[in-house]
Amino acid sequence: MRPYSIGAFIQICRVNGNKQIHIVVLGAGFGGLTFCQNFHHPDVRITVVDRTNHHLFQPLLYQVAACGLAAPDIAQPIRAILSNRPDVTVLFNQVVGFEIAQKQVLLEKGQLAYDYLVVALGGQTGYFGHPEWERFAPGLKTLDDALRIRSSILLAFERAENATDPAEHDQLMTIVIVGGGPTGVELAGAFAELTRTVLNRDFRHIDPTQARIILIEGSSTVLSHLPPDLSASAQRQLEALGVEVRNNLHVKNIRAGEVELGNGKIIRAGNILWAAGVSATPLTRQLGVELDKAGRVKVNPDLSLPGHPEAFVVGDMALVLGENGKPVPGVSPAAMQMGRHVAQIIQVEINARAKPASRPAFKYWDKGTMATIGRSAAVAWVGKFKFSGRLAWLAWLFIHLIFLVGFRNRLAVLLQWAYSYFSFKRSARIITYLPPAPAAEPRP
Amino acid sequence: MRPYSIGAFIQICRVNGNKQIHIVVLGAGFGGLTFCQNFHHPDVRITVVDRTNHHLFQPLLYQVAACGLAAPDIAQPIRAILSNRPDVTVLFNQVVGFEIAQKQVLLEKGQLAYDYLVVALGGQTGYFGHPEWERFAPGLKTLDDALRIRSSILLAFERAENATDPAEHDQLMTIVIVGGGPTGVELAGAFAELTRTVLNRDFRHIDPTQARIILIEGSSTVLSHLPPDLSASAQRQLEALGVEVRNNLHVKNIRAGEVELGNGKIIRAGNILWAAGVSATPLTRQLGVELDKAGRVKVNPDLSLPGHPEAFVVGDMALVLGENGKPVPGVSPAAMQMGRHVAQIIQVEINARAKPASRPAFKYWDKGTMATIGRSAAVAWVGKFKFSGRLAWLAWLFIHLIFLVGFRNRLAVLLQWAYSYFSFKRSARIITYLPPAPAAEPRP
Repeated sequence: MRPYSIGAFIQICRVNGNKQIHIVVLGAGFGGLTFCQNFHHPDVRITVVDRTNHHLFQPLLYQVAACGLAAPDIAQPIRAILSNRPDVTVLFNQVVGFEIAQKQVLLEKGQLAYDYLVVALGGQTGYFGHPEWERFAPGLKTLDDALRIRSSILLAFERAENATDPAEHDQLMTIVIVGGGPTGVELAGAFAELTRTVLNRDFRHIDPTQARIILIEGSSTVLSHLPPDLSASAQRQLEALGVEVRNNLHVKNIRAGEVELGNGKIIRAGNILWAAGVSATPLTRQLGVELDKAGRVKVNPDLSLPGHPEAFVVGDMALVLGENGKPVPGVSPAAMQMGRHVAQIIQVEINARAKPASRPAFKYWDKGTMATIGRSAAVAWVGKFKFSGRLAWLAWLFIHLIFLVGFRNRLAVLLQWAYSYFSFKRSARIITYLPPAPAAEPRP
Repeated sequence: MRPYSIGAFIQICRVNGNKQIHIVVLGAGFGGLTFCQNFHHPDVRITVVDRTNHHLFQPLLYQVAACGLAAPDIAQPIRAILSNRPDVTVLFNQVVGFEIAQKQVLLEKGQLAYDYLVVALGGQTGYFGHPEWERFAPGLKTLDDALRIRSSILLAFERAENATDPAEHDQLMTIVIVGGGPTGVELAGAFAELTRTVLNRDFRHIDPTQARIILIEGSSTVLSHLPPDLSASAQRQLEALGVEVRNNLHVKNIRAGEVELGNGKIIRAGNILWAAGVSATPLTRQLGVELDKAGRVKVNPDLSLPGHPEAFVVGDMALVLGENGKPVPGVSPAAMQMGRHVAQIIQVEINARAKPASRPAFKYWDKGTMATIGRSAAVAWVGKFKFSGRLAWLAWLFIHLIFLVGFRNRLAVLLQWAYSYFSFKRSARIITYLPPAPAAEPRP
């Protein structure tokens, strides 16, 4: 296949569409997609750029890693979601740079000129200045990450079944998860369940219920964004499932198959997963504005880029303060609210055919926080109400089903969950091709 | 992770289990699995070896390639299927050789001694002496093959959407399928439907309904194993879906992105798929017995290896004649019947504690043949009855659901099919990591 270019295509678009306003949306996650779904204007055409062909329901990504769901259950083709929007063009392409002053975005193949820009590229796994750890402790941000982790975990048990050296057996039977935030807690709970209730009868030489799931958290508690009693409940629920929770512990170094802790101890593990940090894409450095240390963009209260009212940043990349004075968290409801906010601002301006004197500031409506730990085990914090255990789990289940994009997925996932719940089985325990670690991963 | 060995483990097994008879089953496809499910004896332990961790419902593999089903819908963990059989040990390992005289099988890691051997390793894509074509025209035998094809087909449309060169556009919009047997027909029909009814509204610059699906068949008809009227019906149904069927055409050469035909013409295509041949694994050469040109083993009428009554070959690897004097076809019902036959022979011999004077010959019961072409389009031939169109399709649907291993999968697949049927949507249109072509594929 020869290389191709979209440069000419964009030129053609400009010539044909020069009376139209062009909005470029970078990223089809919750922020970018919600923007599109809330923006309709006959004089505007929208181009959505994403480096994958699917919108990912990221809150359930850990279920793919833990063999609970199949990849297509939590991913919908972006083109399918937007197929009824002839005003929207989807580009399968990667953003490589910004020329904000020239109102241009540079793509891997070609470039795009815009009248309005919505940057919604989300986050990536952050290693606190230790990118070399990524090879040994993958993070969980994409479907490929999840499929790679799924294969790697299952493979470790297969190898343990055949291991004759007790030290090797113990290493393969250990999973270390670094970071006690929602992702780390959900992964630890899901792997504890996988080993205790699903794999427990499958092997003849190892006992998967003896697998060690170690959750390492730097602060004094898991889920430190929740009230202390809920954090404590989450920890108790994790421990009841068999997870070893180690608080107040830092990671000093990570090498192939081992984690060196701040206290000098070394844990050898067949799988080490990194759930300790998220950072914005390094591309934010090209925006020429102030960033926080995680690379998030300090946006104006209306979510626009300082000095560039035509450019907005939404979702996990945006650093904006909520009414409580704290940064709005990097969660999907916040991204969706931001997408809707920017859609309203641009819609009003285009209808008014002039820039209004002032724009409304973004207000985050915190609908509550929840994290699931396992079968009938979860914590939820909604307004003044705190739940844990079965009630929180049912609330979590209900809300995640409601928000799953696409009818098929919702039904398939419900069915899958019901089956797993009543049968103690998980059907996605498939080792497929094990892609190389991210360092060696080429862009398709 | 350090290398490991199961040599020591097998030594231990022998010492502990030296009073037991040991049956080694190579391959957990339809043949190997049916053997295990039909063999129970308190004095016997069974070891099943497979190079994947899952049993694959191969008749539906084309649905994964064509975005209709998710990988876990058609794959079940071998360990899960056999988890209630403490007498069965599953080894995730690869067969690398045979020492039939010493009653030993050589594995990638270690070796296994047996009292009885059941070889059920199935087939692989055969290129008629042109292994170099595999890179450019992948076949469809494993889940990884299907996922690779799925990503590659979707990627071609993404590239066509951005292509400015008309020749490149036309190439990317062309899919060539070599071989008009059941797999080729099913793939052609499924891709025709994908482009005509699923992707049709998703793009802004290309028209997926104009994609060319070219099916190349060397003989005078597709599905040449069926009666002529059914073959003709299949061809008409394919053409109604938009497939270009080219009979009596041979492939002379395959290069990157192009097929050179026997008539000297060249077809340029973004995707070339090979469905023209299946051959047994080259390991059969080590069995020291006569093979046919596809590498199949000429077994005795009881399915044992000539000169080695303790070793049997079942499934696609076995060449045995049916009552009509023709070779039993390489289909899953035949493999299952062979697995059951060998289970009965061994069971009788162990119960009798002596070799009987003679063993029953394998008799193939042909339950009929069917191939699906698309929505309400199929052909079926059962005994004296021939069906085509909707009735054949419903029969196909029903039978494939009945035989899908595992309750979850059956329900999930039914739901998925019902949804696809009524909505004209397919949800597994996900481009994941594109593994390298088979030539470069490492064993996990």
